[in-house]
Amino acid sequence: MINKLIANIRKTNAPIVVGLDPMLSYIPEHIVKKAYADYGETLAGAAEAIRNYNRGIIDAVCDLIPAVKPQIAMYEQFGVEGMIAFKKTVEYAHEKGLVVIGDIKRGDIGSTSEAYAVGHLGKVAIGSKRIAPFGEDFATVNPYLGSDGIKPFIKVCKEEGKGIFVLVKTSNPSSGEFQDRLIRGVSGSADGEADRPLYEVVGEQVAKWGEACMPEAPSDDADAGSSYGYSNVGAVVGATYPEMGRILRKLMPKTYILVPGYGAQGGKGSDLKPFFNEDGLGAIVNSSRGIIAAYKQEKYASFGPEGYADAARAAVLDMQKDIAEGVGL
Amino acid sequence: MINKLIANIRKTNAPIVVGLDPMLSYIPEHIVKKAYADYGETLAGAAEAIRNYNRGIIDAVCDLIPAVKPQIAMYEQFGVEGMIAFKKTVEYAHEKGLVVIGDIKRGDIGSTSEAYAVGHLGKVAIGSKRIAPFGEDFATVNPYLGSDGIKPFIKVCKEEGKGIFVLVKTSNPSSGEFQDRLIRGVSGSADGEADRPLYEVVGEQVAKWGEACMPEAPSDDADAGSSYGYSNVGAVVGATYPEMGRILRKLMPKTYILVPGYGAQGGKGSDLKPFFNEDGLGAIVNSSRGIIAAYKQEKYASFGPEGYADAARAAVLDMQKDIAEGVGL
Repeated sequence: MINKLIANIRKTNAPIVVGLDPMLSYIPEHIVKKAYADYGETLAGAAEAIRNYNRGIIDAVCDLIPAVKPQIAMYEQFGVEGMIAFKKTVEYAHEKGLVVIGDIKRGDIGSTSEAYAVGHLGKVAIGSKRIAPFGEDFATVNPYLGSDGIKPFIKVCKEEGKGIFVLVKTSNPSSGEFQDRLIRGVSGSADGEADRPLYEVVGEQVAKWGEACMPEAPSDDADAGSSYGYSNVGAVVGATYPEMGRILRKLMPKTYILVPGYGAQGGKGSDLKPFFNEDGLGAIVNSSRGIIAAYKQEKYASFGPEGYADAARAAVLDMQKDIAEGVGL
Repeated sequence: MINKLIANIRKTNAPIVVGLDPMLSYIPEHIVKKAYADYGETLAGAAEAIRNYNRGIIDAVCDLIPAVKPQIAMYEQFGVEGMIAFKKTVEYAHEKGLVVIGDIKRGDIGSTSEAYAVGHLGKVAIGSKRIAPFGEDFATVNPYLGSDGIKPFIKVCKEEGKGIFVLVKTSNPSSGEFQDRLIRGVSGSADGEADRPLYEVVGEQVAKWGEACMPEAPSDDADAGSSYGYSNVGAVVGATYPEMGRILRKLMPKTYILVPGYGAQGGKGSDLKPFFNEDGLGAIVNSSRGIIAAYKQEKYASFGPEGYADAARAAVLDMQKDIAEGVGL
């Protein structure tokens, strides 16, 4: 699946993923009102508003970008109805040729992690049938539980040709509380191993997991294009930490990096260069509210709420330019 | 909510939570067959089997135990239909007077973590309405993203009188890959801080978060009973690591510990003493397949698949005895 994502990135010349994190407060009033009129102020009403909002965004930007990243929390908060909206958003994005990264940040152990992997990336066995429950192409995964949590995902990725992005260094201010803690070097080794922050230790492990999950080449999926030398196991590293990105980029040369934190969280195009390899690949940058709620920014206010999708399109084009200039693509 | 959980534990004299992790392979054939006959080999068929299986277990053990812990991955793997079964399981357990710990291991940042918290423990605002989407009493939470991930949960816990259990030291074999890494002591402090494993650093932070989330006393919820001095922020520490449990117990005196890993994963009653405080409280021990699939063990085989619920009841009674002897309750 990493090859398909890269092929999409090259086709659009945009290492950009649009985060579909539809908070109700982002959704223009005309969409919300219509949904409530049809379904009431209910979970189904909220879910309908989300779906229509997402469709508008996807229609407006699908020719410009390789992928979308729905944040499942924003759907799950509306219960079962929200999960239906999540699934339908995944399906609609697929119809439009987009790769879908499910931002689910799951992580558990053994058969439980496998259940998440099957539910989101694979097919669940029911009697003689095998059914794909949510059907994303990638999922984000939390590493805190170690290999027991990651390997079941890798197993499903290999079976299904899917991929994951493992959290390494997240974009938020408090990510350092645990991720930046200095891990003592292994004492007793001949020349002494230096102390390193936890995110480096995790990053190194991600690179190891990735070695075991390189895509097969040549792929029998014509869509998947050629092989670019990257693993189906990627990493999440926040745009807000470019220096750490530089170190992690070197530590994980074959690992695609999903970079959140651009735009609303403070990351700029000029911060992004360290996340890319010299081949111009290796990173895909997420923006969520900076795109999907662009019409709320002064810069795009002239589009108005009715033009929220066109505002999103304009914001994607600006982001593409900002990244191209900042990274030198 | 911790007070209600403790009141339930005292009433039943059983610091036990039954993990409702309904893998299809655990479910007796007569239940699965009937569900497939009614709904086909579909996600809905699997979900129906899960629901009926769970109802049987809950009916059989609800007078013996304080709480159940549905593992959401086992529902999520069946997509939207699975999530409906999850919600209905939560509702049914509530009808039977049980506290429900949603084993969801979510963790994200800011508004995203808040969305998870609202979805599982709180009420989501839709127009003028406020609706509880899934309605658990507690949720398990992953700490890797730091305070930005935990504080939104604490906010919702305070508003709704709910609680969380934060992963500290998980029960699985590879939990040490990151959790046991030695964090370098803060240099430059007067007397030098010693190196400590990551799980201790996390545990200490859990205790701090917990200070900010003590239940109000006296509660206006008659059901909630009196206050026992424990926080609504608990911790997860695996039964498979009793020595670490001993250290963490001291480091987090007001933190209730949810202890997985008993039974099938290898933890024994005699391993559990370190997790309890001298008041006989402070820990609640989970068993999942050891209870819900007890009929598959030689010991309970005489119950047969038709008697799976009675086998679960017998296994709970044995577990209660094993813990009482091991811990000296």
